[in-house]
Amino acid sequence: MFTLPQKDFSAPTTCLGPTCMQDLGSSHGDDLEGECSRKLDQKLPELPGVGDPAMLSSDTSYLSSRGRMIKWFWDSAEEGYRTYHMDEYDENKNPSGIINLGVSENKLCFDLLSWRLSQSDIQRVEPSLLQYADWRGHLFLREEVAKFLSFYCKSPAPLRPENVVVLNGGASLFSALATVLCEAGEAFLIPTPYYGAITQHVCLYGNVRLAYVYLDSEVTGLDTRPFQLTVEKLETALREAHSEGVKVKGLILINPQNPLGDIYSPEELQEYLVFAKRHKLHVIVDEVYMLSVFEESFGYRSVLSLERLPDPQRTHVMWATSKDFGMSGLRFGTLYTENQDVATAVASLCRYHGLSGLVQYQMAQLLRDRDWINQVYLPENHARLKAAHTYVSEELRALGIPFLSRGAGFFIWVDLRKYLPKGTFEEEMLLWRRFLDNKVLLSFGKAFECKEPGWFRFVFSDQAHRLCLGMQRVRQVLAGKSQVAEDPPPSQSQEPSDQRR
Amino acid sequence: MFTLPQKDFSAPTTCLGPTCMQDLGSSHGDDLEGECSRKLDQKLPELPGVGDPAMLSSDTSYLSSRGRMIKWFWDSAEEGYRTYHMDEYDENKNPSGIINLGVSENKLCFDLLSWRLSQSDIQRVEPSLLQYADWRGHLFLREEVAKFLSFYCKSPAPLRPENVVVLNGGASLFSALATVLCEAGEAFLIPTPYYGAITQHVCLYGNVRLAYVYLDSEVTGLDTRPFQLTVEKLETALREAHSEGVKVKGLILINPQNPLGDIYSPEELQEYLVFAKRHKLHVIVDEVYMLSVFEESFGYRSVLSLERLPDPQRTHVMWATSKDFGMSGLRFGTLYTENQDVATAVASLCRYHGLSGLVQYQMAQLLRDRDWINQVYLPENHARLKAAHTYVSEELRALGIPFLSRGAGFFIWVDLRKYLPKGTFEEEMLLWRRFLDNKVLLSFGKAFECKEPGWFRFVFSDQAHRLCLGMQRVRQVLAGKSQVAEDPPPSQSQEPSDQRR
Repeated sequence: MFTLPQKDFSAPTTCLGPTCMQDLGSSHGDDLEGECSRKLDQKLPELPGVGDPAMLSSDTSYLSSRGRMIKWFWDSAEEGYRTYHMDEYDENKNPSGIINLGVSENKLCFDLLSWRLSQSDIQRVEPSLLQYADWRGHLFLREEVAKFLSFYCKSPAPLRPENVVVLNGGASLFSALATVLCEAGEAFLIPTPYYGAITQHVCLYGNVRLAYVYLDSEVTGLDTRPFQLTVEKLETALREAHSEGVKVKGLILINPQNPLGDIYSPEELQEYLVFAKRHKLHVIVDEVYMLSVFEESFGYRSVLSLERLPDPQRTHVMWATSKDFGMSGLRFGTLYTENQDVATAVASLCRYHGLSGLVQYQMAQLLRDRDWINQVYLPENHARLKAAHTYVSEELRALGIPFLSRGAGFFIWVDLRKYLPKGTFEEEMLLWRRFLDNKVLLSFGKAFECKEPGWFRFVFSDQAHRLCLGMQRVRQVLAGKSQVAEDPPPSQSQEPSDQRR
Repeated sequence: MFTLPQKDFSAPTTCLGPTCMQDLGSSHGDDLEGECSRKLDQKLPELPGVGDPAMLSSDTSYLSSRGRMIKWFWDSAEEGYRTYHMDEYDENKNPSGIINLGVSENKLCFDLLSWRLSQSDIQRVEPSLLQYADWRGHLFLREEVAKFLSFYCKSPAPLRPENVVVLNGGASLFSALATVLCEAGEAFLIPTPYYGAITQHVCLYGNVRLAYVYLDSEVTGLDTRPFQLTVEKLETALREAHSEGVKVKGLILINPQNPLGDIYSPEELQEYLVFAKRHKLHVIVDEVYMLSVFEESFGYRSVLSLERLPDPQRTHVMWATSKDFGMSGLRFGTLYTENQDVATAVASLCRYHGLSGLVQYQMAQLLRDRDWINQVYLPENHARLKAAHTYVSEELRALGIPFLSRGAGFFIWVDLRKYLPKGTFEEEMLLWRRFLDNKVLLSFGKAFECKEPGWFRFVFSDQAHRLCLGMQRVRQVLAGKSQVAEDPPPSQSQEPSDQRR
């Protein structure tokens, strides 16, 4: 699970090895995983066009060893990012530019959001908002967050403001939680494929690692669907980590899942939580897509809706406006935990993750506007997501390409394995590059630590004309590539309609 | 310099010892040093009312050892903070509440700021501001910052946007710089007394320490003023750190100085920079009060105004709007460094220190409004600061109390040593508590690591009626306390008029 090619990162607090050296974020966005992934492992030199790992030992003598590692995460993102941002698609100014289906942002509702955020009730400037405030967040905001989560998470009892800590986004929350829950070098379990940027979020400051629970597409044993997480797989991964001397302190669950677009049933959630309790593991439940479930019949349930949490003192929930309100640039996230030690420790770090008092006021006004959210924003957002999803999934179906996507999130997890002659990650990267060369940016599976080469994440939450052009460019690349695999792999085409559990 | 009472913080990345265990911040503000300082050292149990250090080894088993340390910083602030915030002065609702002369905020110009921030040109909501952006900050903002600093720092050549990284405040910048410049356990030199919250800013995430350059009030040798920093003292402190096995990676200079209200002359600055270059030390120059020099004849010069920096690749300048624009709650700060390795590494950490795109737009609009800043804000702000400073300094003079303050910042460094019978820090804390009991909050010298018990920082940047009441309460406390020291200590009363260098 963990190999630690030390390179010159000799400081004890430096995060090492593939688990953290992969570049899963980017210098210009929280979610540009795929297009910029660079692996620093044995295979790296074999990958064409990938940066020289020797750069890590080069003499950037102004930085500490951890500073070099932190800089490496940025630099390694640059090539892919630069390619995209030097040639961004714009329907008027640069119609032959790159279409971005790689970054998980919802670009469908800026009209609604711009209108709402421009209303006069949102803007207020008063002295208390310009002064130092409680680092947990202004009380008026934490009260609104508690009410908001109570309502939308359908909590059995009202959630409490004292369990809320607000900060500038989910990335910061991962960083803070990793630091206060784990010693340096300890780990969180995480099922793969997963939103890869978490690797750096727990590592860059906290020097915490991830121990993978590898899932695969094959439906075996008692599984009912591909990439299914089970307690058995959790137990196995935990044992393996221990046998390698890695101390596991917690489990990270992303629900709705990224990149699978899947959800955990309440029964499954309960099982995972009981597993965690048995091993005294913290559970971080990332519900950052909880309101982006666009298939109503899908039956999503927040962990906060459970009648009784098995281990409430070790269950920590995160939510943010980045995805559900399509405002990743606004930088607003929140922790909900009953554990006051954890809330306090995170709050103590919030002096480094604070958000403007003016933004806190805006968010409180937005979140309290239940009428607009329920009657305008969510119905329209879900309808637009569903239409975009339908378009891309039908395109894929027409191409005979298997995919997974059950009605949540902004992405479809696409199985392009038949387009890789030998089924290697090198070929996956080559295919990704061909897409980029043909002016469409996608995310490849390795960036999500998918163990099967050939999976890609397609983000569909964009305007129709861009989606259309993007899919056209995808088709061109795939058409130019002969299908070498005689027998398609066993993954099924899975759509909302036939993916109910 | 460093003693490391290990307690149960056994993890290698945990910051230990008095240098970082002192509580110099607070849970509810960046600058509530004095009123909440709790020392975790041998003397702690002797201090009445101070929390039990055993709490550090108590079983808050949900947290890592560093998590407990991080939480401790919050908890230890609680008593002082709670006392204040449970009983905040309000002229209408709570006229017998506590007057806050402890937190360094400028409360004199909310009228001007509220007006400016409410203008229509400041508010804009557009998609690009709501999406992921360059973590260094939007280019439009970095361009404005570069122009702003070029103008106000009087740089010999235009400063460049690529050397600018914006983030959510100075605290975050200290955290990021400490992490990318130092290994865990390494140190920065810092002259004392200093803005004590820096201790936790470099420690909580970065596990970096401070090595003190102790200054004192006695004017000896070639000194021309109390608490004077000289290269000789820097050399001595550096030698001492080395002899104790502490690796020093840099020097922190606060200019204008907090809490002294003093500035370094360009010649002094140059000497310190040459010292740093000789030892290959980074220099972090915190100029967060650079526009709060209210004595025009004072001759303040930004380090960026120097014709030639001795070691530009190791000189890193920070500025923020917290002080100079009286908006600590807005969370906007910036780094300026020519070193692209450092800028990039800090930017890579900015995914945890990001500020809202909406705020970035607001700040760009504010900083570009040179007319308003030059013709309205700065003249009025300086006039109000000067009037408030004059009032408090005349009050102190009438009481026969020596003090230092040369015309910069929001505070006066007040010598109350004659009110301490034995001249101990325990007595300093008792006196501080008597002030608090009499409903006036001050900051005591130990929170700034002043080595002479009995110094207090009085913040004067508040409305006249609050200042007046605060000083009245100070007088009451001092009048009720007999002056035990027969001979006043040798510190002079020093005011702007007689403090020119």
